[in-house]
Amino acid sequence: MANITKKVSWSSRADELGAAGEGTPLLNGSEQSRAFRELSEGGNIFQIGRLSTVDLEEEVTSDEDSVKGRPKEIPHNEKLLSLKYESLDYDNIENQLFLEEERRMSHMSFRCLEISRWVICGLIGILTGLIACCIDIIVEKLAGFKYQVVKENIEKFTEVGGLSVSLLLWAVLNSAIVMLGALMVSFIEPVAAGSGIPQIKCYLNGVKVPRVVRLKTLMVKVFGVICSVVGGLAVGKEGPMIHSGSVVAAGVSQGRSTSLKKDFKIFEYFRRDTEKRDFVSAGAAAGVSAAFGAPVGKNTTTHKFFASMISTFTLNFFLSIYHNNPGDLSNPGLINFGRFENDSVAYYLYEIPLFIAMGAIGGLLGALFNYLNYWLTIFRIRYVHRPYLQVMEAMLVAAVTATVSFTMIYFSTDCQPLDPEHSEEYPLSLVLILICPNVLCFRDICQHVQLFCADGEYNSMATAFFNTPERSVRSLFHNQPGTYNPLTLGLFTLTYFFLACWTYGLAVSAGVFIPSLLIGAAWGRLCGILLATTTDNGSIWADPGKYALIGAAAQLGGIVRMTLSLTVIMVEATGNVTYGLPIMLVLMTAKIVGDYFVEGLYDVHIKLQSVPFLHWEAPATSHWLTAREVMSSPVTCLSRIEKVGTIVDILSNTSTNHNGFPVVVQPAKLCGLILRSQLIVLLKHKVFVELARSRLTQRKLLLKDFRDAYPRFPPIQSIHVSQDERECMMDLTEFMNATPYTVPQDTSLPRVFKLFRALGLRHLVVVDDENRVIGLVTRKDLARYHMGKHGLEELHLAQT
Amino acid sequence: MANITKKVSWSSRADELGAAGEGTPLLNGSEQSRAFRELSEGGNIFQIGRLSTVDLEEEVTSDEDSVKGRPKEIPHNEKLLSLKYESLDYDNIENQLFLEEERRMSHMSFRCLEISRWVICGLIGILTGLIACCIDIIVEKLAGFKYQVVKENIEKFTEVGGLSVSLLLWAVLNSAIVMLGALMVSFIEPVAAGSGIPQIKCYLNGVKVPRVVRLKTLMVKVFGVICSVVGGLAVGKEGPMIHSGSVVAAGVSQGRSTSLKKDFKIFEYFRRDTEKRDFVSAGAAAGVSAAFGAPVGKNTTTHKFFASMISTFTLNFFLSIYHNNPGDLSNPGLINFGRFENDSVAYYLYEIPLFIAMGAIGGLLGALFNYLNYWLTIFRIRYVHRPYLQVMEAMLVAAVTATVSFTMIYFSTDCQPLDPEHSEEYPLSLVLILICPNVLCFRDICQHVQLFCADGEYNSMATAFFNTPERSVRSLFHNQPGTYNPLTLGLFTLTYFFLACWTYGLAVSAGVFIPSLLIGAAWGRLCGILLATTTDNGSIWADPGKYALIGAAAQLGGIVRMTLSLTVIMVEATGNVTYGLPIMLVLMTAKIVGDYFVEGLYDVHIKLQSVPFLHWEAPATSHWLTAREVMSSPVTCLSRIEKVGTIVDILSNTSTNHNGFPVVVQPAKLCGLILRSQLIVLLKHKVFVELARSRLTQRKLLLKDFRDAYPRFPPIQSIHVSQDERECMMDLTEFMNATPYTVPQDTSLPRVFKLFRALGLRHLVVVDDENRVIGLVTRKDLARYHMGKHGLEELHLAQT
Repeated sequence: MANITKKVSWSSRADELGAAGEGTPLLNGSEQSRAFRELSEGGNIFQIGRLSTVDLEEEVTSDEDSVKGRPKEIPHNEKLLSLKYESLDYDNIENQLFLEEERRMSHMSFRCLEISRWVICGLIGILTGLIACCIDIIVEKLAGFKYQVVKENIEKFTEVGGLSVSLLLWAVLNSAIVMLGALMVSFIEPVAAGSGIPQIKCYLNGVKVPRVVRLKTLMVKVFGVICSVVGGLAVGKEGPMIHSGSVVAAGVSQGRSTSLKKDFKIFEYFRRDTEKRDFVSAGAAAGVSAAFGAPVGKNTTTHKFFASMISTFTLNFFLSIYHNNPGDLSNPGLINFGRFENDSVAYYLYEIPLFIAMGAIGGLLGALFNYLNYWLTIFRIRYVHRPYLQVMEAMLVAAVTATVSFTMIYFSTDCQPLDPEHSEEYPLSLVLILICPNVLCFRDICQHVQLFCADGEYNSMATAFFNTPERSVRSLFHNQPGTYNPLTLGLFTLTYFFLACWTYGLAVSAGVFIPSLLIGAAWGRLCGILLATTTDNGSIWADPGKYALIGAAAQLGGIVRMTLSLTVIMVEATGNVTYGLPIMLVLMTAKIVGDYFVEGLYDVHIKLQSVPFLHWEAPATSHWLTAREVMSSPVTCLSRIEKVGTIVDILSNTSTNHNGFPVVVQPAKLCGLILRSQLIVLLKHKVFVELARSRLTQRKLLLKDFRDAYPRFPPIQSIHVSQDERECMMDLTEFMNATPYTVPQDTSLPRVFKLFRALGLRHLVVVDDENRVIGLVTRKDLARYHMGKHGLEELHLAQT
Repeated sequence: MANITKKVSWSSRADELGAAGEGTPLLNGSEQSRAFRELSEGGNIFQIGRLSTVDLEEEVTSDEDSVKGRPKEIPHNEKLLSLKYESLDYDNIENQLFLEEERRMSHMSFRCLEISRWVICGLIGILTGLIACCIDIIVEKLAGFKYQVVKENIEKFTEVGGLSVSLLLWAVLNSAIVMLGALMVSFIEPVAAGSGIPQIKCYLNGVKVPRVVRLKTLMVKVFGVICSVVGGLAVGKEGPMIHSGSVVAAGVSQGRSTSLKKDFKIFEYFRRDTEKRDFVSAGAAAGVSAAFGAPVGKNTTTHKFFASMISTFTLNFFLSIYHNNPGDLSNPGLINFGRFENDSVAYYLYEIPLFIAMGAIGGLLGALFNYLNYWLTIFRIRYVHRPYLQVMEAMLVAAVTATVSFTMIYFSTDCQPLDPEHSEEYPLSLVLILICPNVLCFRDICQHVQLFCADGEYNSMATAFFNTPERSVRSLFHNQPGTYNPLTLGLFTLTYFFLACWTYGLAVSAGVFIPSLLIGAAWGRLCGILLATTTDNGSIWADPGKYALIGAAAQLGGIVRMTLSLTVIMVEATGNVTYGLPIMLVLMTAKIVGDYFVEGLYDVHIKLQSVPFLHWEAPATSHWLTAREVMSSPVTCLSRIEKVGTIVDILSNTSTNHNGFPVVVQPAKLCGLILRSQLIVLLKHKVFVELARSRLTQRKLLLKDFRDAYPRFPPIQSIHVSQDERECMMDLTEFMNATPYTVPQDTSLPRVFKLFRALGLRHLVVVDDENRVIGLVTRKDLARYHMGKHGLEELHLAQT
């Protein structure tokens, strides 16, 4: 019988333990002393106990020691759970103020609120669509400008010889552009780095990622993604669009911006986590819809749906005007990989095993990608954590991307005859595309240079490599058989794989969708070609484009491990539902195979940030644990009428950093729950009962005061409380949530988890059978337990 | 100030009140006496109080009187809530037995369970696909056979004159076929009537609809839908497929069938409501997928997704074999309305308002449809409730459908020239299609008769009317402009509208999707034609097929009021994502307009059945109410160690019909919750502590015993308990759920609702601040409150 007890890291548990404040009924959960419970039954389950709180005084002392002795920066490690993240409260705080407001509201007021919600969703859609449209157009314009500048240089050096000078110019130019983006991201808003999807995923999960939905972040994100794409990195602009949509939603729904210091005094009803979350979720959907033209999501509501719809509509409308075809709305989304025609690319039953095999390859390659990126990220966290180093790394990647590409094309001998009929599609030469990956290919430009190839031919490697990624994917899907030779595709896969892997995680705003699709489409097409050559019946496997599509799905699925959403996105992007079924199969295979080795890319990054992320369900083998064992205890409780001094002391105590306090009446009976943020507002407005002057009425505080302070409540240090005021009392009755959710102490972890997760709680009070508070379950207490390779594992908590 | 108090129907509340059993701690919620709470604030909110339980004895007496005095059958009425429906428990009963089992299970066992889940979902998909395939093929074969029989008759009478004899033959034949289906449904399994979607919706909502997922129901359903379609009614076979998928799922996941009296002794772990619900949900998804080729759902999980995928795959595989094209899997789903080509039918910005207007028309027509069907259903409930009457009505509808169609074609002068190139598409003549609506149109048959038209022409009315509905929709979408004249379309819309409205709700298995689409496509195409003729710029509005598509979406949306699912279905069925956006818009408009008048068709039927259906959220203005006011009180509680006689008496009490009992320790402290079903199993296995013989150990009962009894626990009357046994005690500790969810009595209704709904509860215990039981909230207590036209309304409970 495996009887492994956990190592209790005293230091890491420090701030989960309450300190005895003056006049505070500090509860000592004596029931907790049943530590190291012996297992009497068999089975290979790991025992998880907890050292008991034998003597409170001693423990608090030892805690404080360990807090001081702790190193400032703990090496990042996926076995840690950071305590720096606060949680969001997706459960309404139903205190008296709130209930009174709700009760005052008439049927009509609720209708108006509902209409406001639709209006906000409409605005979110419009703004998100506009931002997507702007990014698209600006990228195109800037890339065109870059082209003009460099083209002249090229023409000069091609004639006089010494093309390496030109290469140097482009590499430097790319590096410079990328540098701009990286500077913004590193120095102004580091949270704008990457695709933003992990951050939004955490936010929607209930973790407060600081500054993630601020206007400043949006600005940096938009600027950053433009720089990354124009700078020629192996990145996409889809992930950042999802993040942008979320920021827009957070801003619009709150009717104000802290970055702009502007409050429009509208939509004040929506200033709480619950409502804001719903809108952010709608914003993310609008972003997805702008990028892919498809509303995607597990829990799509009508509001989200509406926001998505409006977003796609706005984007298409303005793009149609920009492309001089106003009003034609039949091409939703930024990404369009071109239609697969039913007749040409039907699939047959005997191809299904092949598709599944390709899914497995995608899973393997995706796992490799994530694994490499995991080590790279650890390396970056350890050694590349200073802003200037991050900027330099980004510039280095930009330069290397340019150089590697140049070298590969230089040594490539894959020259294909130029087909005059399709000349506007294929022959993108090095010169054009190295410098302007996103410029549309005009006929006159395209035919200009056939670098390293004879006249009337074009460089196939260049086509694969230096096109805009979206266009490259499209060529891989749709070009006629024979467009690419296998060596080109193999080399391209190899190079782009490592470049994309190196690029993801840089301090630039950039997504990983399009690079993944491109890698997958390349090896997928390679598979198709190999199949056609190795089998006799060449006509059946005639179309390698079909395999490029499957490969793209497999690779994307192997990296990000989504199934449902990606199927919809792929189907939407190819405009054909016929391939829905094989794409689903491939994505599921890729996920199963990939999950065997390593988690999805986003989850890897979430774990590396030590975010207390809660999955949908508790680990399967966690029925061993009960609320008593997972809860934080003892809890700092407040009395219903509490001394101001006590409250200030509790809030000022930095060793405990609690955000929720059960309110009790003697003897320790639970009667409510109050948040740190509420106490801060009460202290700030000096809602005190001055016993000395026998004024027993408190200053009347309105819900509006709380909403105005939301979401950035001042720290306790900024609030001055005089010595006289410390002696006053504070009546919490009106402000506390009088009906917090509770669980009995014997509740099993899966049951606690289900309640916590289903209701989006932040604090769950554990009570004994007489309704006395004995502990508090928070997100960190639940996120600590996760399923490892050998069974249930417990993460350590750390103040990173 | 509107100050309306509810009429308390004593009789209807009877069975919510506990009777004082011997030795049972019967709690009298004295706090409840705050009835008719006066509103001191303004606003147009309706006050809802409750007459207090002043004297318990008196109340119980008056209850029993009223129970006897109550009429046997209460007229159906949407202001009533039936008490005949039990609830399902989607919260795991975490008693000691369950926890011990879970704790004994290793990591590996959970993996095996997970694999079992995938296997079950695979089986569900395969079986659902097969059933769909069978229905499709059998319908085609039978219709072909019917054609052969009648064709000879026609030819005879066309020559000698007296075609009315032929009409009579067809009408009688149709009636006879429909009669077979109606007989099965009315006499053998009435729950198999209709589309089955409302029933499955209720089941997934947590209402136990008796016999809805039994094998017998499936048999009747499949047989019934074949008869309805072959019998020429205005019905579709899509809804029944969803129901079929659910039944398959329920059967497969439980590893046994009660109808067959066969227990395969597999998948025993899944024999509880929680797991069964998940599988039924997957089965419904598989059914949708078989019908429409698209996995649809708000909360799609990977398992559901997998089941859908397999279902579509199986269906396509076998259909491809049947159609002599084995292995070609590129045409998912039974429904395929043909592809819209991008180039021909792009839409423009200025068409959006037109689409929205059409959405509004769809909403209006849908509301009319539902309203008419609502009154029709009330009529049926009152006067057509005997099986033989139901069969006769179904036969009447079949005959009238045939006659009306014949008459219309006879008087139709809409003869169109026969286009030799497309002759296999259009010229479906009366003779062929009146008798065999689902037979494929072979070339030789199609050109056989041009009834009432000159040679070389065909009857356009016949094309619209008598084709198989799926094919008719396709023609309306894709036929060239000029195929139909406006009068034909107008008449067709009118007739089919009323026929479909009359047909829905008959005692036959039949869906409403396809008829709705057909009505909408007809008036949509009419709109398109009118637009083309009234505007100068005819070329833009050239394609009426586009408007047929929009009309179909509008009508379907107006009737069933879904938005998300229907968008996916429509996009899938048309094979083109371009129209996703306008379809969404149209569906949302139709829903908003329709909801203003009357609910969706399924919801109308759910309400007419007085089902306690819970929506996702509590009514907006229900913050007035607290748990104390909505709960059932007093509650019959049991002691942890209870006398057998007491338990038997409580369970036998027919005036109370409780299914859950809080278990308390003195003085009334909650320590658990036990279900009627569990007590029944305990009594059946005689798990008694015989005090007399001082044997204090109970007979050991395993979880398996409960699983074997699930889900049809015997009634208490069938269990014999001797007088000696009545004196024994029963220790409930091991069997009760020791950690039931509780709420404090002051919790607001929305908060109670949220907890109840998010966790899928069946019983929620209301406790005071010392953890004493004061009430119990069940589904009926929450479903009673709903949003009416003028604010919050309360439904009456009735024992229908």
